[in-house]
Amino acid sequence: MPYFDAASAAPLHPVARQALLAALDEGWADPARLYREGRRARLLLDAAREAAAEAVGCRPDELVFTPSGTRAVHSGVSGALAGRRRTGRRLVVSAVEHSSVLHAGGAHATAGGEVTEVPVGRNGAVDPDAFAAELGEGVALACLQSANHEVGTEQPVAEVAGACREAGVPLLVDAAQSLGWGPVPEGWSLLTASAHKWGGPAGVGLLAVRKGVRFAPQGPSDERESGRAPGFENLPAIVAAAASLRAVRAEAAAEGARLRGLVDRIRARVPELVPDVEVVGDPVRRLPHLVTFSCLYVDGETVLSELDREGFSVSSGSSCTSSTLTPSHVLRAMGVLSEGNVRVSLPAGTEEADVDRFLEVLPRVVASVRERLGGGGPAGGGGGERGDLVVDALGKRCPIPVIELAKVIGTVRVGGTVTVLSDDEAARLDIPAWCEMRGQLYEGESAGPGGGRAYVVRRAS
Amino acid sequence: MPYFDAASAAPLHPVARQALLAALDEGWADPARLYREGRRARLLLDAAREAAAEAVGCRPDELVFTPSGTRAVHSGVSGALAGRRRTGRRLVVSAVEHSSVLHAGGAHATAGGEVTEVPVGRNGAVDPDAFAAELGEGVALACLQSANHEVGTEQPVAEVAGACREAGVPLLVDAAQSLGWGPVPEGWSLLTASAHKWGGPAGVGLLAVRKGVRFAPQGPSDERESGRAPGFENLPAIVAAAASLRAVRAEAAAEGARLRGLVDRIRARVPELVPDVEVVGDPVRRLPHLVTFSCLYVDGETVLSELDREGFSVSSGSSCTSSTLTPSHVLRAMGVLSEGNVRVSLPAGTEEADVDRFLEVLPRVVASVRERLGGGGPAGGGGGERGDLVVDALGKRCPIPVIELAKVIGTVRVGGTVTVLSDDEAARLDIPAWCEMRGQLYEGESAGPGGGRAYVVRRAS
Repeated sequence: MPYFDAASAAPLHPVARQALLAALDEGWADPARLYREGRRARLLLDAAREAAAEAVGCRPDELVFTPSGTRAVHSGVSGALAGRRRTGRRLVVSAVEHSSVLHAGGAHATAGGEVTEVPVGRNGAVDPDAFAAELGEGVALACLQSANHEVGTEQPVAEVAGACREAGVPLLVDAAQSLGWGPVPEGWSLLTASAHKWGGPAGVGLLAVRKGVRFAPQGPSDERESGRAPGFENLPAIVAAAASLRAVRAEAAAEGARLRGLVDRIRARVPELVPDVEVVGDPVRRLPHLVTFSCLYVDGETVLSELDREGFSVSSGSSCTSSTLTPSHVLRAMGVLSEGNVRVSLPAGTEEADVDRFLEVLPRVVASVRERLGGGGPAGGGGGERGDLVVDALGKRCPIPVIELAKVIGTVRVGGTVTVLSDDEAARLDIPAWCEMRGQLYEGESAGPGGGRAYVVRRAS
Repeated sequence: MPYFDAASAAPLHPVARQALLAALDEGWADPARLYREGRRARLLLDAAREAAAEAVGCRPDELVFTPSGTRAVHSGVSGALAGRRRTGRRLVVSAVEHSSVLHAGGAHATAGGEVTEVPVGRNGAVDPDAFAAELGEGVALACLQSANHEVGTEQPVAEVAGACREAGVPLLVDAAQSLGWGPVPEGWSLLTASAHKWGGPAGVGLLAVRKGVRFAPQGPSDERESGRAPGFENLPAIVAAAASLRAVRAEAAAEGARLRGLVDRIRARVPELVPDVEVVGDPVRRLPHLVTFSCLYVDGETVLSELDREGFSVSSGSSCTSSTLTPSHVLRAMGVLSEGNVRVSLPAGTEEADVDRFLEVLPRVVASVRERLGGGGPAGGGGGERGDLVVDALGKRCPIPVIELAKVIGTVRVGGTVTVLSDDEAARLDIPAWCEMRGQLYEGESAGPGGGRAYVVRRAS
């Protein structure tokens, strides 16, 4: 039963399992104690810190272990912002950061701070110059992920880090998706990661803060982890996390190249096998194991459950909730189609045969869902002579508004308009995306008569 | 090699180990996902929550899992205080709470809140009436541990809970030390606990918040654990925590009675075997497995390392640091001797023979340390005729100031005074405690001439 959602959580790496078992026996005591069980635990903790620091590319005393990648981000952002409060209260982030970064920004805004989101292109990457342009007065911290968790696009970390250095602004790099695949480009001030993304156990995040970066931990603290992560250390999991990071790194080059080939195959074949599909994310500067595409006239949730029935575990839309009524903030920021969104992220060791079977099953699944929803008929190109048309899709959820639009666009004359009335959040993103895909003209939206919004599409062909 | 520090961290219970191993295979995926691995993880998480809720005595939807007991306390205190901000900003805690509660109070005070510490008696328990008297205007939250982590004294939770109910103040009970031994008395509004204290794995805390209690989680949150504990759930550890809690509870009555007998033996024999010892904590209303005593004329750190050399792992003074220059806040609040402090906390399954060997080894260890430090000679009772005396112990650490005092008290005439000059924090606690133990009159302290303090003791006999 192929599991293709490594970007959510990777199955436990055998090395992580071995290390965890050993550490359950050797590392259960309090490393702050001076008796032998405590000293033994301390040795394990120190060794794990050294191994993790080496993989991250920092000094052991710059790195602490947190209970999760999310907690590492929350502590890193709040500590760095507080450390530079005198400089200012502006936080600059990319629009496609992980929700943990956006939530930390939200808390900062609630506390009276200012958050600036740097937009991304259709490929999901920020423009380094656009990012640099935001690093003006009063910026306390900038955040940029190493690679995006939903579409796999690598961010220009080195360039942005250079701009941050010039502006004297510390840069926090969320390396959750990439750390298992290799080191992060030089120039970061703070770095965060999450063990269960690279095959380590749950319960372990990393927070590295370069010496010299002003950092003031927020909230209550204790003497553990340099006062940056309170609470009894989860030592067996920490040992397993460090051991597995070293192990996956050793395999990263070869396995990364192999998975990159499999993902290239998916990227090439899906558009050939499934009509009306948009493969999103940068085709070259991307994570080796992750690909995302969106299919017109289907909803991701149904496609997911159909694929699950066929034995494939993939995710859709936002990578942080199992189902949501609003489209992923990442796809929205990219301005790409969100309906029928499927993210495939291959764990290390994925069989080529499973990928081929996925490519065999997917077209069938999408076709059956489209048939059920009545979507996917010929859109545009009809010899329609009708004048302007209004489609009332109020109360109907994605992908129905787009399906209704596609059904009628061919019935109006070229130059005529179809106005879609919809109160579905996804329509705001998917109707323009549909126009882009189908070569029709999107004329914009306005407040609809019966509530919701009115989206105007002019038939171009 | 007997480990007698269960109050810091208990060795992993066999049931916890089994459950953890099973959950590593079954529970590594994201429980928020809808595919089979996610659904399987969700089932495990729900079952663990139900088991933990049953042991705690609450509804499953009132309980969330946190990364540690410390994080449960921090989140519980900050959430409850914020939920009742309109009522007031006062936090009432006992003076002997775990450092995680005091640190949360410190953060509250830093943010402009007010913290009131209710004193305890020499047995370590708060007086319910004294606690009730503090529940006046503007109290947002009260905190009381179920039992003390350093001396084992059980707190009058039921009585204090009644007073809180009358005053309309929510009560947070830190049950970290007692939950494995049985349910907490009725009446709490919030409850916290820590799995590695009952033989569960590290990385899991419990936070229960009764329905109807105003609670506003602080800091960034996400959709996990009802928005009260952000970050990917540490599912294998959570499953192991719940399974082991159920297991230790099933054994608690019998094992508790057995350990209580062993601790009674230690409480009775130590004063017989070791001169100048004070056994602290309530002899009856106490945890079954924990006993603390302090030995005059030795320092706890040396006694610990000597006992470690003999194969016994125990702790001393503050239970949260391996070594500290200031005496434990618990012993200070109780007004008992802190020098030569030893805490013995027996894990389940402790052999009777190991306890007997401890009682055989301890006197030898204490005697050898006293000999090395030149302490423990006849104190008082000498036929001294000298007048008032000043002992300069500046720059000398515990237990030297008390040893110097004991050496000379017999050389001054009855009614004469010995003034000890000391800049050691422990002297403030230990000189009065020594007077109480040796029937001498403590006359008080004042600023010393050469810096530090001057402690005046009048010879009574």
